[in-house]
Amino acid sequence: MVPVTDSALRVALLGCGVVGSQVARLLLEKPEDLRSRVGQQLELVGIGVRHPDVPRPGIDSALLTSDTAELVTRADIVVEVMGGIEPARGLILSALAHGASVVTANKALLAAHGPQLYQAAQQAGVDLYFEAAVAGAIPIIRPLRESLVGDEILSVMGIVNGTTNYVLDRMTTEGMSFSQALVEAQALGYAEADPTADVESYDAAAKASILASLAFHTEVLGAAVHREGITMITPEDIEAANDLGYVIKLLAIATLVEDEVEQVSVRVHPAMVPLDHPLAIVRGAYNAIFVESRNAGRLMFSGPGAGGAPTGSAVMGDLVTVARNRLRGTAGPPLTPYTNRPVAPIAEARTRYYISFTVRDQPGVLAQVASVFAKHGVSISTVRQTALADRTDTARLGIMTHTARDGAIRDAITQLRTLTVVAEPIRSMRVEGH
Amino acid sequence: MVPVTDSALRVALLGCGVVGSQVARLLLEKPEDLRSRVGQQLELVGIGVRHPDVPRPGIDSALLTSDTAELVTRADIVVEVMGGIEPARGLILSALAHGASVVTANKALLAAHGPQLYQAAQQAGVDLYFEAAVAGAIPIIRPLRESLVGDEILSVMGIVNGTTNYVLDRMTTEGMSFSQALVEAQALGYAEADPTADVESYDAAAKASILASLAFHTEVLGAAVHREGITMITPEDIEAANDLGYVIKLLAIATLVEDEVEQVSVRVHPAMVPLDHPLAIVRGAYNAIFVESRNAGRLMFSGPGAGGAPTGSAVMGDLVTVARNRLRGTAGPPLTPYTNRPVAPIAEARTRYYISFTVRDQPGVLAQVASVFAKHGVSISTVRQTALADRTDTARLGIMTHTARDGAIRDAITQLRTLTVVAEPIRSMRVEGH
Repeated sequence: MVPVTDSALRVALLGCGVVGSQVARLLLEKPEDLRSRVGQQLELVGIGVRHPDVPRPGIDSALLTSDTAELVTRADIVVEVMGGIEPARGLILSALAHGASVVTANKALLAAHGPQLYQAAQQAGVDLYFEAAVAGAIPIIRPLRESLVGDEILSVMGIVNGTTNYVLDRMTTEGMSFSQALVEAQALGYAEADPTADVESYDAAAKASILASLAFHTEVLGAAVHREGITMITPEDIEAANDLGYVIKLLAIATLVEDEVEQVSVRVHPAMVPLDHPLAIVRGAYNAIFVESRNAGRLMFSGPGAGGAPTGSAVMGDLVTVARNRLRGTAGPPLTPYTNRPVAPIAEARTRYYISFTVRDQPGVLAQVASVFAKHGVSISTVRQTALADRTDTARLGIMTHTARDGAIRDAITQLRTLTVVAEPIRSMRVEGH
Repeated sequence: MVPVTDSALRVALLGCGVVGSQVARLLLEKPEDLRSRVGQQLELVGIGVRHPDVPRPGIDSALLTSDTAELVTRADIVVEVMGGIEPARGLILSALAHGASVVTANKALLAAHGPQLYQAAQQAGVDLYFEAAVAGAIPIIRPLRESLVGDEILSVMGIVNGTTNYVLDRMTTEGMSFSQALVEAQALGYAEADPTADVESYDAAAKASILASLAFHTEVLGAAVHREGITMITPEDIEAANDLGYVIKLLAIATLVEDEVEQVSVRVHPAMVPLDHPLAIVRGAYNAIFVESRNAGRLMFSGPGAGGAPTGSAVMGDLVTVARNRLRGTAGPPLTPYTNRPVAPIAEARTRYYISFTVRDQPGVLAQVASVFAKHGVSISTVRQTALADRTDTARLGIMTHTARDGAIRDAITQLRTLTVVAEPIRSMRVEGH
């Protein structure tokens, strides 16, 4: 437990990019206001950057240092907004070992090394807060950690990556291809030059792992999250979804699977969402998260999912909280999990699919197809047959399943491929939000 | 500061109605799970009720007592879900004076005596938590108190009363009159036998005062909130709004008014909301709240606004938090305001209006009407003239204003009434959500 201090709390900032410069601004802009909120002055003692010689508008250059290892040893609170695994991980561990509280926005680090960091904070008796790591300024970490702590969360589902939401949005509204929409997003600064982390869903998977850990009080690493990207989505997929009354969104989904043993299922993939579902109208770079719990029912949180100012706001909220905790010689609720629920393989997830493929237009085909699904225990909700413009002997079949084991549906699809009456391309996509 | 205890934390429950019975169930159902979350056992030591002889299913009758004054003296945490001003106020003050932490769902009490209770909790160094007092299970108090504490909130706007939302919803979708919809809501248990608190907006005003106090760090009592009910809304109002692309909702609105002196404007009234606004699609007994802040941008929170289980979930979240705080010998962030921003009179609010009235259909009328608005500094956005079926010498004029001082627009309406070319009925309603 850290000692209560009568002097100013020393804050060290690691990183001065889009988010870091906003945090510096908010720290320096209205110090008296901040003092009222905290109950004590916050003093920015240094900003760790790679190139301290580069001048930063509005920031005293004497604050800039590249000696981050030294900087974290002379702070009461370390704010890490540099991103990446190292040196962020080492610096945070060093800060915690020196008794400093830590605020971070680093989802990749938490997804990879969260358990180690949570334990280090707990051992040191100090805070590790990270509201900004998921969904920008939307308060979702604190509601999961605190507001819903007396309830039992059943599922968390949301749009947690603004870049892919923007790309899919443009594909939907403008009929663009994935590549066209991506190039536009890059030109507007919504996507990175190397867009892999976003479009291959690594970013969303990291956030899903953090949300799942907190919602289900168990250890979920980012690497354990089933992950599918959006690069294979075609304008035809989007049009076909729209014809059926759906829109394609990249969803992060974490659910409690209540079989004999309780497991958690955590997955990130594109899915068809009904047009009248609240997630369907989440546009552009916005994020939205649904939380369903045993007693509270279905709650929704939405807002700007990224950007310097919103993320800076989330960091400042955490900073004020950990500063207050420090002044009282205490720390927030524990982060170390108290259950041991394993992460279920993707085959155990419960979902619906829409599957479309070409068939010979002859008697008995539907019976053959239906028997494949029946054999795998998958119920069919609707079947839709569309004539092909250029062929009279074949047709396109669209099948919407009922909810079933993901593995069972995919096994059925695999067997469909072996039928002589079925021809490629077989397209399939999960359907969520019913 | 309360001493850290090694023995079970004693919980006293005041009230065993819709919410109280849920809280009792959640406390008794999974004690081991709760112990993991808190870090210590919670022991329900008694339930204060008016009639302890009435048996309650699932509850040991030995727990029931009518001696609430005695009960609160032997608890570490008192959960007040009895409602009303007295005896709730006296019991909470007694509990705080005895060093107990308090969780309450009592919005009417907080709206009337919040400052006294906040101060009593602060003096005793114990917690007073009340997430359940506003918007059921939707976490809104904690985000305002903690997540956004490093930001500057500019406005809070939402649907915070499920009863009136249900009534307006039925009027909109079924064309019912107010009375018809109210009778239906009463039959379904969504409205009380005496619906005054809901339909005259006392309930929403109480919630608005709590939200405004926290958002703007100043003292706002329920009685200071400008309050208009929904009893005068007619099916014609709803139809006229719909023709223009709007729906009528009862809104609670709190804004920071940044004139020479910073003031807060807090009001509850029906308003026209654009059909494509997220608040327009909040249906039935659901609640939704928008929070706009300087850095975080616009956040939205929605979910079930009432009901035993959702409200019970919010109470349990608070209960776990105050129990954890107690075990660490600490308390949550202070509730006493640190600014002294006065509540602005309704005339100082900034809003738009839609005003409709009958005029003589003759040259120069529009010029006369427009000059009245101009004289009061109110810009007109659109004018819409509709012929009346049964008359050729008169027409109905509909005027949408731009944003202006509420007082200026109402002065303009008063002067309109004096024009000989203008005839009653003059109908007017505020327009929000642009």
